[in-house]
Amino acid sequence: MNLNNASAEQLAELEEQLAGEYDAIKTQQLNLDLTRGKPSSEQLTLSNALDGILKGEYTTSSGVDCRNYGGLDGIPETQTIGASILGLPQENVLTGGNSSLTLMHQAMSVAHFFGLQGPGSAWSKEETVKFICPVPGYDRHYSVCEHLGIEMITVPMTAQGPHMDEVERLVATDSAIKGMWCVPKYSNPTGVIYSEDTVKRIAALGNTSAAKNFRIFWDNAYGVHDLSDQPVQLTSIWDACVAAGTENSVLQFASTSKITFAGAGVAFLGASETNLSGFKQSLGFMTIGPDKINQLRHAKFFEEEGSLRRHMKKHADIIKPRFACVLKHLETAFTDNDLGAWESANGGYFISFDTKPGLAKEVVKLAGEAGVKLTPAGATFPYGKDPSDCNIRIAPTVPSVEQVDAAMEVFVICVKLASVRQALNG
Amino acid sequence: MNLNNASAEQLAELEEQLAGEYDAIKTQQLNLDLTRGKPSSEQLTLSNALDGILKGEYTTSSGVDCRNYGGLDGIPETQTIGASILGLPQENVLTGGNSSLTLMHQAMSVAHFFGLQGPGSAWSKEETVKFICPVPGYDRHYSVCEHLGIEMITVPMTAQGPHMDEVERLVATDSAIKGMWCVPKYSNPTGVIYSEDTVKRIAALGNTSAAKNFRIFWDNAYGVHDLSDQPVQLTSIWDACVAAGTENSVLQFASTSKITFAGAGVAFLGASETNLSGFKQSLGFMTIGPDKINQLRHAKFFEEEGSLRRHMKKHADIIKPRFACVLKHLETAFTDNDLGAWESANGGYFISFDTKPGLAKEVVKLAGEAGVKLTPAGATFPYGKDPSDCNIRIAPTVPSVEQVDAAMEVFVICVKLASVRQALNG
Repeated sequence: MNLNNASAEQLAELEEQLAGEYDAIKTQQLNLDLTRGKPSSEQLTLSNALDGILKGEYTTSSGVDCRNYGGLDGIPETQTIGASILGLPQENVLTGGNSSLTLMHQAMSVAHFFGLQGPGSAWSKEETVKFICPVPGYDRHYSVCEHLGIEMITVPMTAQGPHMDEVERLVATDSAIKGMWCVPKYSNPTGVIYSEDTVKRIAALGNTSAAKNFRIFWDNAYGVHDLSDQPVQLTSIWDACVAAGTENSVLQFASTSKITFAGAGVAFLGASETNLSGFKQSLGFMTIGPDKINQLRHAKFFEEEGSLRRHMKKHADIIKPRFACVLKHLETAFTDNDLGAWESANGGYFISFDTKPGLAKEVVKLAGEAGVKLTPAGATFPYGKDPSDCNIRIAPTVPSVEQVDAAMEVFVICVKLASVRQALNG
Repeated sequence: MNLNNASAEQLAELEEQLAGEYDAIKTQQLNLDLTRGKPSSEQLTLSNALDGILKGEYTTSSGVDCRNYGGLDGIPETQTIGASILGLPQENVLTGGNSSLTLMHQAMSVAHFFGLQGPGSAWSKEETVKFICPVPGYDRHYSVCEHLGIEMITVPMTAQGPHMDEVERLVATDSAIKGMWCVPKYSNPTGVIYSEDTVKRIAALGNTSAAKNFRIFWDNAYGVHDLSDQPVQLTSIWDACVAAGTENSVLQFASTSKITFAGAGVAFLGASETNLSGFKQSLGFMTIGPDKINQLRHAKFFEEEGSLRRHMKKHADIIKPRFACVLKHLETAFTDNDLGAWESANGGYFISFDTKPGLAKEVVKLAGEAGVKLTPAGATFPYGKDPSDCNIRIAPTVPSVEQVDAAMEVFVICVKLASVRQALNG
């Protein structure tokens, strides 16, 4: 289906045919949902053994009673898990509560209001504070910036990661730019893994940034969430920073939310001693310590060598058919034309789809009216504004394969219908 | 032992005798600790059934899967528990993670930086922000203020609660005063329960405060922590606010930290719909929701009618002999003289002791050198500065009764010795 060379007559005919298919679907009164980037019930059940796993043993190997107060860093057992996921030494890992978003908000608040290297380094001391946001990206990263009054500067994502020429130019010339959000592996939503070159250039930013208090927020949310058996390895940002002498320029985050229980996992912050100490100076005012018992549960659950990887394999077995179903529909419908573009994600939770410019909102509307809920168009851009109105985030993990299949059938028709109507009116 | 009428010779003789006793104790090389306001291992064991209590059932009565993301308010089952402890309707309770300190820091941060009733109500818009701190009080309350750059104004505690004439005068005349910290039941450290009159006058402050964005932070940390079978009832601040039409002027806090597991309990915020909505507007940027599984564990643990009260009775059985031991030593040593003053606490975690002015630091030092660790003198005052240098906080829950007994013997000798030396040199 190539609309570029089609006559007005052909387009009208196609529109009539697609509108007929669309109306037929509407009569089915579907109720499908591709919006939610969260684990399915089947995935959650993989971790059901967590509650009760301690069997009355509440003490760490180092003799700490997890039931009582204290321990701002969390327990060594979960520091080890965090270190393995984030790829840095255990002593550089702090383990928190159930939410890496909380750790990210706290870390950004500390950097903004209090300074990670003393009050003089607080971003809020300056009139304007800016942050680079690769787009499309994760809406909750944007909302942290919005909450703190930090202005967002967008740079486009490429298949290798953020557009680094643009990032380097901005960071070197504008001292109001205090950092950048990154989801380096299976990027939310494009599914891209940052290339070795990109990671090294990001690690080097700490040497060239106009701002002295520059910090990369490296949200490695999908670090172990591979769908392929031979996943592409993400280059270690920590090693790259050590090589560049920029360890203080990066804060790494992860959690077990999409490994064990989404709402009751353990969150990790990996950072240099300087950053950790600056962070903990504020954290100590906010809490007496994280839930160490839940940390101990996780340590016990992943005690055996290789158990985390084996566990993630089970997740992949559940998720893979859903991703494959989405890709099958996209390939069938759009490989021979220019109505849609996407990355073939090998992990993470999303498939990102680009319509022709100006159609994302219309597609989401059409799909919604036909009973298929999609993430609002624009959600993957700061302030909810996609300037090209083309990006749609597809989240296929929660529905069953059959539901994904039915929803994607509707999705494809909506994209085609909106595209044909645009061509007719354009 | 009345030093006021003693001759120099008598004092010198007494000093020699006490110094001898003190030196004898030093040779024992004791290692005792009365600093920690946390539950003993024996108390924590009362809640060991928590882990594993769910037996694979992760769903609330309303059908929410606690394993997944979401639910900023927490689950209804723990809202009920919070409502019962704080004494307000369930819909006015938000249940959070493992730390009420975190909720308090978050609430104060929101009020300060973002405003509980929109950006115009943010305290930080104004040059100077002040908070009333009854003294002696809880050091972690002070440190939240210190962290946020909020100036602390002290008012003395009385046996009925904060000195209300002073509080009312300050609040009515200084619009920079944005609120007051309160521990209304078994106040930390004095053990006082605020009188009905005090509670009603505090509830009325919202009508007379010079500041429009005035908020009482009501930390009811020991609301169910009675040692007596017939405890004095704390007047409901919520009812008093409803009567005065000042529901928006109070934020209430509590947690199960000293009920179940100190580090892995559930925290509560009780507030008006306006305050809750203002708080959640910011909270939604910080987290996707609390650990609902741990909340469900607590709901299950306290499912049976009256089980919370029965559980607290078991705590009381463990704590009571320790408190009684402290009081016995104080009564024996200081009833017939003016060397020390204290409240006879019927609950909570502390006994507050006042030496003669200028002696607290010296007593803490003497005790430390004799192997008895006490909370640093001044810790119960903002900025760590007790202007009279007289207040010492005694925390007897962690050591055994025998250890408390041994430690208090040393304590008493140290108070006497410091007092005699002061009289000699004075």
